[in-house]
Amino acid sequence: MGGDHAPGVVIEGALRVVRQADCNLHLVLFGPMPVLKKEMARQAPDGHPCIELRHAPEVIGMGEIPVAAVRAKPRSSMHLGLRYHRDGKADAFVSAGNTGAIAAASLFVLGRLSGVTRPSLSSYYPTTEGVCLVLDVGSNMDSKPEHLLQFALMGTAYARCLLGIAEPRVSLLSVGEEPQKGNELVRAAYKLLAAATNLHFRGNIEGRDILHHAADVVVCDGFVGNVVLKLAESVMTVLPKMISQEVATQGLDPTAVESFATILQGLKRRFDPETYGGGAPLLGVNGTVLVLHGSSPARAFEKAYFMAAQTASADLTGTILRLIKGAD
Amino acid sequence: MGGDHAPGVVIEGALRVVRQADCNLHLVLFGPMPVLKKEMARQAPDGHPCIELRHAPEVIGMGEIPVAAVRAKPRSSMHLGLRYHRDGKADAFVSAGNTGAIAAASLFVLGRLSGVTRPSLSSYYPTTEGVCLVLDVGSNMDSKPEHLLQFALMGTAYARCLLGIAEPRVSLLSVGEEPQKGNELVRAAYKLLAAATNLHFRGNIEGRDILHHAADVVVCDGFVGNVVLKLAESVMTVLPKMISQEVATQGLDPTAVESFATILQGLKRRFDPETYGGGAPLLGVNGTVLVLHGSSPARAFEKAYFMAAQTASADLTGTILRLIKGAD
Repeated sequence: MGGDHAPGVVIEGALRVVRQADCNLHLVLFGPMPVLKKEMARQAPDGHPCIELRHAPEVIGMGEIPVAAVRAKPRSSMHLGLRYHRDGKADAFVSAGNTGAIAAASLFVLGRLSGVTRPSLSSYYPTTEGVCLVLDVGSNMDSKPEHLLQFALMGTAYARCLLGIAEPRVSLLSVGEEPQKGNELVRAAYKLLAAATNLHFRGNIEGRDILHHAADVVVCDGFVGNVVLKLAESVMTVLPKMISQEVATQGLDPTAVESFATILQGLKRRFDPETYGGGAPLLGVNGTVLVLHGSSPARAFEKAYFMAAQTASADLTGTILRLIKGAD
Repeated sequence: MGGDHAPGVVIEGALRVVRQADCNLHLVLFGPMPVLKKEMARQAPDGHPCIELRHAPEVIGMGEIPVAAVRAKPRSSMHLGLRYHRDGKADAFVSAGNTGAIAAASLFVLGRLSGVTRPSLSSYYPTTEGVCLVLDVGSNMDSKPEHLLQFALMGTAYARCLLGIAEPRVSLLSVGEEPQKGNELVRAAYKLLAAATNLHFRGNIEGRDILHHAADVVVCDGFVGNVVLKLAESVMTVLPKMISQEVATQGLDPTAVESFATILQGLKRRFDPETYGGGAPLLGVNGTVLVLHGSSPARAFEKAYFMAAQTASADLTGTILRLIKGAD
């Protein structure tokens, strides 16, 4: 039931997955049964053997206060789905619901990986060289230096397991390259990251360096990461408008822009948060949790279901545990 | 002597200004006299009656630690220029030097405006509707809620005096619209801004809203503002590369992009920090101080000299004082 267009796009994405010839995924969808049945009947009157519907009578809304909602609604699709995963009946959990509630419920139901103090939501970021991973992007406001160190280690584990980078370069997002630049948090975190022997810390980078792929893993506080992520996503939504304005200002022939449409489409895909990951991984919980934007369309769910399977097959939690324990 | 290309571009920009037919500005340039004279002789062998050179033997480097450098070099071009302004011999001060040092020296030489606890560096930001003002963009790390309130008031004063907006809409940069969203700083600042009767607070905005011109004045901590500013500036530097990559990936005719060159140029101008303001105003000090990027070319200095004159003529400090005292 998570997201702005549930359960329509959730079911549509699932049908897209299971209808692919080589699909061996089994999808279990949680929500109020009458609602799910009605939508399923509309989209696939005969259902599908690889899609299972399960009743979850409560719904956590997008605007609810996370911890309060998670406490008050133990029979929500979020809780029941996460419990299903915890009990080993599902290999991964995917949701486009209230991000704060997913983080809180995951912590409550799955728990933290041993040694992890703060699980972290991370996100792919388009760069001139491909993608980098930025974390935290919104699940941790007011992080402490030791949290940033753990983000660096968890990001390293993710880049190794899912991006195939053996030695991911890690940088700290700051306002200058020098160690003494930045706020209190970043200056203290710099020392911890520089002292860590089990990651490849390359020092501070600035806001302008992210898109130039100055690092494979960019570490920051969740407040900064969220602001930066949303700003970057907005670039491609304002660009068409700004281009039209330029055409008008410069008195150009509007058809000159038409030839550019496919290029813009391609760029838009690059900046689309769903293009790479199909959901942002919540790292550090004892399980595989992917979080989608609330506004995600069916194709984003489709990607996320596949990505969840891939993430679950990788030795991600094992790698995180080893790195956090300093064994790698 | 400030910036990466001093004194060449500083002098070139000055010559551009004074050679304009209707120019009534008098520019005083500070630096080691032999260096200034040599560069002046190269660019304008006969000098110019509206450009005066003054000896300042010390130079504060771009990489120096601000407060230490400001203490150690009282005869730098920065100090002597600011003292000249303080003593009423110049109406404004412009520099592309070490930003932290400019802020520290301004505070030391000019002092704060009465009631202002933390002067703030602000910057123009391109939006679909024109520009908005973002502050702080780097002079205040680890701000407190009351500082953010003052940024809001000073930004309001600036938008009134220099952007001609009678009732500037002020927003707080956060991770969600709801008052309870954000980090500790933003949640506390929200309450202060909402309670202020002398500004038009419109609540929180997110990173994605800035470019859509959700506010005339965007208030944030200097760490966040600096990261966000540099990220936005980098968009136009990565775009040409990403466009070439799209052309290659999609197998398009490269000449299709050529027709787009003037549009890209126009967009680049919009995202160029020098296009609007010609220097970021340091608000809240007892004087008129504009800070340029270290990498600024001559045309940026040219703009900044004019902008400094315009800022000095506006009743900016008076408006800030009245707003801070709650009289407006």
